[in-house]
Amino acid sequence: MRFKFSILALLLEVVIIVLFGIFVEYDHRRKNPEILYPVFQDVHVMIFVGFGFLMTFLKKYGFSGVGINMLIAAFGLQWGTLMQGFWHMEEGKIHIDVKSMINADFSTATALISFGAVLGKTSPVQMLILTILEVTIFACNEHLVTNILQATDVGASMTIHAFGAYFGLAVTLILYRPGLKNKHENEESTYHSDLFAMIGTLFLWLFWPSFNSAIASEQNHQITAIINTYYSLAACTVVTFALSSLVDQRGKFSMVLIQNATLAGGVAVGTCADLLIKPFGAMFIGSIAGIVSVLGFHFLTPLLASKLCIQDTCGVHNLHGLPGIMGGIASIIVTAIQGEERQGVHLTPAMQAAALGCTLGIALVGGALTGGILKLPFLGQASDQNCFDDSVYWEVPEEEKPHEIPSNNYDEHSRFQAIM
Amino acid sequence: MRFKFSILALLLEVVIIVLFGIFVEYDHRRKNPEILYPVFQDVHVMIFVGFGFLMTFLKKYGFSGVGINMLIAAFGLQWGTLMQGFWHMEEGKIHIDVKSMINADFSTATALISFGAVLGKTSPVQMLILTILEVTIFACNEHLVTNILQATDVGASMTIHAFGAYFGLAVTLILYRPGLKNKHENEESTYHSDLFAMIGTLFLWLFWPSFNSAIASEQNHQITAIINTYYSLAACTVVTFALSSLVDQRGKFSMVLIQNATLAGGVAVGTCADLLIKPFGAMFIGSIAGIVSVLGFHFLTPLLASKLCIQDTCGVHNLHGLPGIMGGIASIIVTAIQGEERQGVHLTPAMQAAALGCTLGIALVGGALTGGILKLPFLGQASDQNCFDDSVYWEVPEEEKPHEIPSNNYDEHSRFQAIM
Amino acid sequence: MRFKFSILALLLEVVIIVLFGIFVEYDHRRKNPEILYPVFQDVHVMIFVGFGFLMTFLKKYGFSGVGINMLIAAFGLQWGTLMQGFWHMEEGKIHIDVKSMINADFSTATALISFGAVLGKTSPVQMLILTILEVTIFACNEHLVTNILQATDVGASMTIHAFGAYFGLAVTLILYRPGLKNKHENEESTYHSDLFAMIGTLFLWLFWPSFNSAIASEQNHQITAIINTYYSLAACTVVTFALSSLVDQRGKFSMVLIQNATLAGGVAVGTCADLLIKPFGAMFIGSIAGIVSVLGFHFLTPLLASKLCIQDTCGVHNLHGLPGIMGGIASIIVTAIQGEERQGVHLTPAMQAAALGCTLGIALVGGALTGGILKLPFLGQASDQNCFDDSVYWEVPEEEKPHEIPSNNYDEHSRFQAIM
Repeated sequence: MRFKFSILALLLEVVIIVLFGIFVEYDHRRKNPEILYPVFQDVHVMIFVGFGFLMTFLKKYGFSGVGINMLIAAFGLQWGTLMQGFWHMEEGKIHIDVKSMINADFSTATALISFGAVLGKTSPVQMLILTILEVTIFACNEHLVTNILQATDVGASMTIHAFGAYFGLAVTLILYRPGLKNKHENEESTYHSDLFAMIGTLFLWLFWPSFNSAIASEQNHQITAIINTYYSLAACTVVTFALSSLVDQRGKFSMVLIQNATLAGGVAVGTCADLLIKPFGAMFIGSIAGIVSVLGFHFLTPLLASKLCIQDTCGVHNLHGLPGIMGGIASIIVTAIQGEERQGVHLTPAMQAAALGCTLGIALVGGALTGGILKLPFLGQASDQNCFDDSVYWEVPEEEKPHEIPSNNYDEHSRFQAIM
Repeated sequence: MRFKFSILALLLEVVIIVLFGIFVEYDHRRKNPEILYPVFQDVHVMIFVGFGFLMTFLKKYGFSGVGINMLIAAFGLQWGTLMQGFWHMEEGKIHIDVKSMINADFSTATALISFGAVLGKTSPVQMLILTILEVTIFACNEHLVTNILQATDVGASMTIHAFGAYFGLAVTLILYRPGLKNKHENEESTYHSDLFAMIGTLFLWLFWPSFNSAIASEQNHQITAIINTYYSLAACTVVTFALSSLVDQRGKFSMVLIQNATLAGGVAVGTCADLLIKPFGAMFIGSIAGIVSVLGFHFLTPLLASKLCIQDTCGVHNLHGLPGIMGGIASIIVTAIQGEERQGVHLTPAMQAAALGCTLGIALVGGALTGGILKLPFLGQASDQNCFDDSVYWEVPEEEKPHEIPSNNYDEHSRFQAIM
Repeated sequence: MRFKFSILALLLEVVIIVLFGIFVEYDHRRKNPEILYPVFQDVHVMIFVGFGFLMTFLKKYGFSGVGINMLIAAFGLQWGTLMQGFWHMEEGKIHIDVKSMINADFSTATALISFGAVLGKTSPVQMLILTILEVTIFACNEHLVTNILQATDVGASMTIHAFGAYFGLAVTLILYRPGLKNKHENEESTYHSDLFAMIGTLFLWLFWPSFNSAIASEQNHQITAIINTYYSLAACTVVTFALSSLVDQRGKFSMVLIQNATLAGGVAVGTCADLLIKPFGAMFIGSIAGIVSVLGFHFLTPLLASKLCIQDTCGVHNLHGLPGIMGGIASIIVTAIQGEERQGVHLTPAMQAAALGCTLGIALVGGALTGGILKLPFLGQASDQNCFDDSVYWEVPEEEKPHEIPSNNYDEHSRFQAIM
């Protein structure tokens, strides 16, 4: 049983190294690449520390939250380099520089968002397969949106956030576990796991202006994207605190909302981040995103689980899905109101709408197909009882299970079968 | 009761968005703004991760430490943009770029320092009001010091650190709680809360050279400020470890000193950071700051609490107050010894002294007035018993209160009244 | 007893300030120093947050892990400035700028790696002495490798990683404690201490491209080093997960491997990072490093402890030692296959081999001598029983020792003797 993951991972790494050997070259043609490098590092921190620690909020699933996040991202960035590169080959070669490293990191974000939807319910083997499929489909959809439809999506509200969220929701729908209908005892946080998650929240929040501006085509657009994202997030945060208190019967703040909904402003302003929406426009978008996200967590997530069989562990629908759609809609409105050009292309509401529609459709279909593949029996899912529990996949220090009954053979055996 | 905070926060956000709509424009005139952006990100991390995690040291107040810090900073940076911008309008417009984002972050630091003084004893509503008032008064004092007195304060030892500390101390004096004369049972750390606080300490410590150099007028001055701050902090840290062991009866290090006094060197060298004080001068200032700060924590803070009714939760007097004054005094001495010019203005000890005096006076008076306003009964302070306890304002995971007696109605009721 | 550390630290700081006063000047001759500054900050975060939190994995030694790391680094960077500067004086002066700050941070890394080998078994006084000696010897070896042998080692696989590891292993051999042959009860992690350590792992992992490229001589080499390190680490991570599962009987991942072996790819690619090894070459090196590191942790570390009396707490041999040697060997192979020039010098396998040999020899001899000095009785080592326990050197919050028996006088007394 233990060989399944190891062999798959080693095999994939060998394949990737061979493909890199055939196709990948350094690219030293960009001027002043060192100016892009700090922005790359900000994005890099978001992917590994931001997403990673955000997913440590569960009391017994922190090792997987931050650890499997690292595995997915490290694997996905290599695969993403190839998948994105194949669309832009020159003389049969993929040329890489700092910008393509940013894009490689971006491509992993889709898989990490989907990981949030299925968190605690999938094995590392399943996540490797999901990453291969999702990054591949993402690269195709991104090519469609950017190069064929020639829509704008500088902060990737549609192509990363909405895509990753609806892909993940479709996967979790297919992998529906009726046995988790009643809340699993491990599906909750502790005081310190919530503080660990705040590390993730803050690094995402702080570096989001870099995320939304990293691939802007000109310096002025980049600064515009930085300013818009900064103020959108600030407004979103104030509104999230207000709404969090408002929707609670006793007026108390909820950590899950502060950890997640405060970030919705960064997602929602993404597509329009480098357009001239003015700072107050960015703040308006951020405020609405905060409201939508809080209401989503409070009312919609329970409904999705009970009525639509969509068990969304981290609530990615509220952080990435709805705000991602908002970003697309905002871009339709903005391009309808004012003419904007990007790289010689006149942006139109029709193309923005087409981009949004394609993205959602491809994400849902791709996610459903992926979910079907992940359900194949030989991949060996963990039992419901073993969900949200690091000890299925990790050596966990003893003293954290103070009252554990000495394990009997049957239990060991069933766990053993469940591994990977 | 729960509506008080929500409505105030939403109302303020609406007002701010309207004011942004009227006054705020992008500014794309700066050359090479992308060079300032990494420095902005360092400052940004200091404000949200640095200050935020530094205040998670209390065993039951970590959510508020990092969460309310985030609220204050996100709100304050919007308010600060307006308050600082009003002093520099061109054709009725406030122009924003990366540098004004740095200044907006700076302005929130004053409120966060004051938050450290009152930590655990104020409600979120009170903190919003404090932030409005303090950021407003800060912007006026900064204008006075920089533009009217034309004093230098590149690292803001006076205008941010001393100002924030003495403002906060005046607030906490007015809000004096005799019931907390004997140490509250929650006013202590745990092993892991101390480690969380070290995250804050280290990110403040590491990025302080960026803080002290961010608004330097020329590149040479910027590099000088970076070098001086780097060595000042290093010297301060060695001295703090030495003193921490020395003042303890059994020679043991104290986490509260390592978390705080190691940073005093960054504060104290601030005002003179871009002056030609030579590296050894910076290290001398840092060393003295470490000594002053450790002695302040060890001897002065208990005295302030018992004799002067000043309950300074985080000891901001020792980290920001005394070292801030030291920074001002150092600048008086340096400008007396050697002539320095900044932006065509000859710096004089008289103006540096005037800047220090004005700052302290305005901070103390402003803080006292603010404290008076925060004391208004309808703002509903928490009872002494509910101080330093997240569960008054936050949903807190159950298992962290293992021995809690099932709550009776009376207790619930009194807590409910205390909220916000 | 408590005065020993304090007086030594204060004395050293005074000596350093005096030496700085005599020798150290600002250097404002570099063009565009602000472009190097973000890279410096990345390295700075690695040294203090990366190494610091990586060493918080022990359940009762987190304060020392992150705290003494900070002390060593803050002291070492001052000492390193002088030791490195003495080899490059101009007109009797050491000129410092952002690049020399990077080098000063680098020099502390050697002492921090050695700290990992002796973690839990040495006093702060011993660590100060180790830092003085190791940084001094490092600066000499670095001068020998770089300027006399004119070998290349851009990412310092040999001069920092292998040097620091074998120096530390020699120290821990001399300080061998037979009483720790059976695992000490404190020498293990907890669930949350392992998460704290992941903060360190991730910041090291993320900023390693900056470490390996920081001192590259040209911009193209710098970008090459960034790309190679990025892909080497990614490949190493996938392989480490695979191997971690493979070597475990039940196929489970081990936190100690994920925290450490994932980083081996950054070490091993260091020496060749700026050479044209192509991305797939970097990934190959990274993959082998992951395999070597995992096997080292799993098979070699227990052997070293039981057969060779080398008690390597953090397993620095597997993270820095073996991958460091790999880096040197890789550079011998690469320079043998293809001609490369750096700063006008033609690189030869002979010089690379000489550099590796010298480094290992000097590290082992220097470490053994240092170990002998640290063994001097008046330095007062902690007893075996007091190893891996913060409470010997730190005030530790009460509630973390729930079942502690009220201390009797004898116990207090023996602890007191052990301090510093």
